[in-house]
Amino acid sequence: MEYKKKDLTGTKNLSAEEILFILETAKKLKEINSREIKKVPALKGKTIATVFFEASTRTKNSFEVAAKRLSADTISVTSSYSSTLKGETLLDTVHNIRSMKTDIFIIRHPLSGAAKFVADNIDTPVINAGDGTNEHPTQALLDILTIQEHKINLKGLNVAIIGDIDHSRVAKSDIWAMNKLGMNIKIFGPSTMIPANIEPFECSLASSISDAIRDADVIMMLRIQLERQSKLLLPSLREYANFFGLNNKNLSYAKKDAIIMHPGPINRGVELNSDVADSPQSVILNQVESGVAVRMAILYLLGIQKRRNK
Amino acid sequence: MEYKKKDLTGTKNLSAEEILFILETAKKLKEINSREIKKVPALKGKTIATVFFEASTRTKNSFEVAAKRLSADTISVTSSYSSTLKGETLLDTVHNIRSMKTDIFIIRHPLSGAAKFVADNIDTPVINAGDGTNEHPTQALLDILTIQEHKINLKGLNVAIIGDIDHSRVAKSDIWAMNKLGMNIKIFGPSTMIPANIEPFECSLASSISDAIRDADVIMMLRIQLERQSKLLLPSLREYANFFGLNNKNLSYAKKDAIIMHPGPINRGVELNSDVADSPQSVILNQVESGVAVRMAILYLLGIQKRRNK
Amino acid sequence: MEYKKKDLTGTKNLSAEEILFILETAKKLKEINSREIKKVPALKGKTIATVFFEASTRTKNSFEVAAKRLSADTISVTSSYSSTLKGETLLDTVHNIRSMKTDIFIIRHPLSGAAKFVADNIDTPVINAGDGTNEHPTQALLDILTIQEHKINLKGLNVAIIGDIDHSRVAKSDIWAMNKLGMNIKIFGPSTMIPANIEPFECSLASSISDAIRDADVIMMLRIQLERQSKLLLPSLREYANFFGLNNKNLSYAKKDAIIMHPGPINRGVELNSDVADSPQSVILNQVESGVAVRMAILYLLGIQKRRNK
Repeated sequence: MEYKKKDLTGTKNLSAEEILFILETAKKLKEINSREIKKVPALKGKTIATVFFEASTRTKNSFEVAAKRLSADTISVTSSYSSTLKGETLLDTVHNIRSMKTDIFIIRHPLSGAAKFVADNIDTPVINAGDGTNEHPTQALLDILTIQEHKINLKGLNVAIIGDIDHSRVAKSDIWAMNKLGMNIKIFGPSTMIPANIEPFECSLASSISDAIRDADVIMMLRIQLERQSKLLLPSLREYANFFGLNNKNLSYAKKDAIIMHPGPINRGVELNSDVADSPQSVILNQVESGVAVRMAILYLLGIQKRRNK
Repeated sequence: MEYKKKDLTGTKNLSAEEILFILETAKKLKEINSREIKKVPALKGKTIATVFFEASTRTKNSFEVAAKRLSADTISVTSSYSSTLKGETLLDTVHNIRSMKTDIFIIRHPLSGAAKFVADNIDTPVINAGDGTNEHPTQALLDILTIQEHKINLKGLNVAIIGDIDHSRVAKSDIWAMNKLGMNIKIFGPSTMIPANIEPFECSLASSISDAIRDADVIMMLRIQLERQSKLLLPSLREYANFFGLNNKNLSYAKKDAIIMHPGPINRGVELNSDVADSPQSVILNQVESGVAVRMAILYLLGIQKRRNK
Repeated sequence: MEYKKKDLTGTKNLSAEEILFILETAKKLKEINSREIKKVPALKGKTIATVFFEASTRTKNSFEVAAKRLSADTISVTSSYSSTLKGETLLDTVHNIRSMKTDIFIIRHPLSGAAKFVADNIDTPVINAGDGTNEHPTQALLDILTIQEHKINLKGLNVAIIGDIDHSRVAKSDIWAMNKLGMNIKIFGPSTMIPANIEPFECSLASSISDAIRDADVIMMLRIQLERQSKLLLPSLREYANFFGLNNKNLSYAKKDAIIMHPGPINRGVELNSDVADSPQSVILNQVESGVAVRMAILYLLGIQKRRNK
């Protein structure tokens, strides 16, 4: 098989085959990260640009490590969205960087649809590293890679996704991808953080955290944005922890071998108690490790395509 | 020929031969940027420091891409001018970085003359990446390279430079260089933005934008600094666009094959209307592309000199 | 010999043999920095993370240059301490980066003991790049390397350390290391900046700057933090310069071949007058040069150990 799309803007428009192909590629490349010399020349002489209109060292570092392990060069453009509003357009910024003969763009932007907008207007591959509340596809891919490493089959697995579903691009990308792979998804969170219409997501809505967790193979806790509190979307943090947080007690509703996931960084004592965050069932650091592998895979697949940068 | 100067601090002190030699070198190196593997080992093991006392990702990225394409390592020092005022002197900062065995300095500073001051006090090559309102020589070189790629002869070309000439180091470097190459320059802009004495620049002052543009082969629009408005140097932006902006209508005064240039980033609808910015006559993105080539050339020429870093 | 510790968290827990072994390694590697091609493949394919919770371009650049000269890749995490307080724990941050298969951590943190705390909780080597007022071991090592290059024997040398001893991690690391190497240390500074109990430091307290400097082979002036003034720890800067600053006049108390050191950046006219800062006796820029060599040495010694990153 071959990855034929020019871009990776989301998981919604990927087929199950495409998802599994990227994950197979990631598994092959992951081994590089355990070598004594963690570097292959696959993308030597390629220039990869990270264009981040939102602060993020974590995702940016993961992409940059992935690029360097493949011997690519990176350039970084960081900008606050507000300054762009006043000056250059997003497309002008991107066309400018592309004229330096950039091979791949990695874009994070506070507006939903921004990465796709750029992808549709430029002949260079674009990877969406998070666009507003819409998608964060490499996070979903690394989540599924991590699940694959802990479970025999993806099909039929029960996944609970708990937290601020409405604002979470991670949740959206996970839901689109997991549905295609035959996983059963239950979501749960404060009612102010559940989409008004969940029908398109083809998942069920739990009535309590114990209902969400019951018989789960995978429990995915979302990071709560502390600033949501002031916007009245969130009760007090203590209440949140009580009703929507994961701890040893409500974990008992899940299957005995359930794994616990979190996109990080963790708010300990809020969405996740330390007893579960540090338990053997937690695969949170495995997710970080999978992240480098998945990003190497997609950079590799887009970087070796022939049609770019004419 | 050989580039024998230790530094590139401006175009004013370059001969026509030196300018053309750098441009010839740039043309040879430019081809590297279209290769599948955009990297040559020319400056492997060299350390290039960007020392920017003014914010700028664009010029910095262009220099860093150029350095990486030549396999050099880069280190970056960014500082606000004000913090330097309170602490270490500029020379102490630069001597410090040089003691790490830096091979080339790329310096941007808000004070006119800063790059030359450093160059005169250190035995390492210095490239001026913009000093106050004085010079920005690599921008002028990339402008001329772009013109060369679109016109048969530089000599005798009519160039209109329009905007804030007085504060523009780009305009100054272009004017010094273009005069040496036998080009005819007309400048135009709000009277608050025209130097009190234009005699040293050996160019003519147009009386209106149509006068400036008439019979032009090259139209160079300068970026207007929006903050000048509050300093009363600038009428309203709408008025500026009306009297000093380029649009399809006044473009008709130029030669049919005139090219449109801008150092970027563009204020669309202010100094440049979108109809001309995106027209086939616009070579703005070619300028960005030329920028990497010109910077590769000067880094290469200074990096292979033998006398440095004793 | 071999460097068998997993980390470099301070000089207090190093033996004289370990200190001298790191310095011998540094002397061998230093020569690389004078080559035409300043790069060896020793740490190719290794990933080195700088995690700086305090602003510092100087030390960070020195470590990054050292890493690149050894062909390692670097990733950078910078964060203000306050933002960490509100969110992720220090250990979560570090474990996260380690999961990207980081080989060495370089940590700067405003809390004393932070680097050791991380080192004790992670199986990856940790280098302390400054922790609160506790230690800054690579600075002490580069100081001693610089002294070695100017003096025949370390043993029996008279060293004066002058300034804010109490808050200076540089002074602490120097004192621990120099005592082990048989050097005689006198300290001096405003009484508000001398530790209440100097007994553990095994050095003598001078009664005046001339007493401190008398017969010194090495004069180490500490950087005064200008913000200490507002905390009433510091008299006016002019008074400080008068009573605690080094100038040509009080320098005459030292031995004729005394060398003058400073960790930089210098406050000219405060702790150090320009006449001495720029005199032939000043080895301040040699210190910067030694810094790259010492950091190459410790990165090399920790990077070639076999037990890491299981």
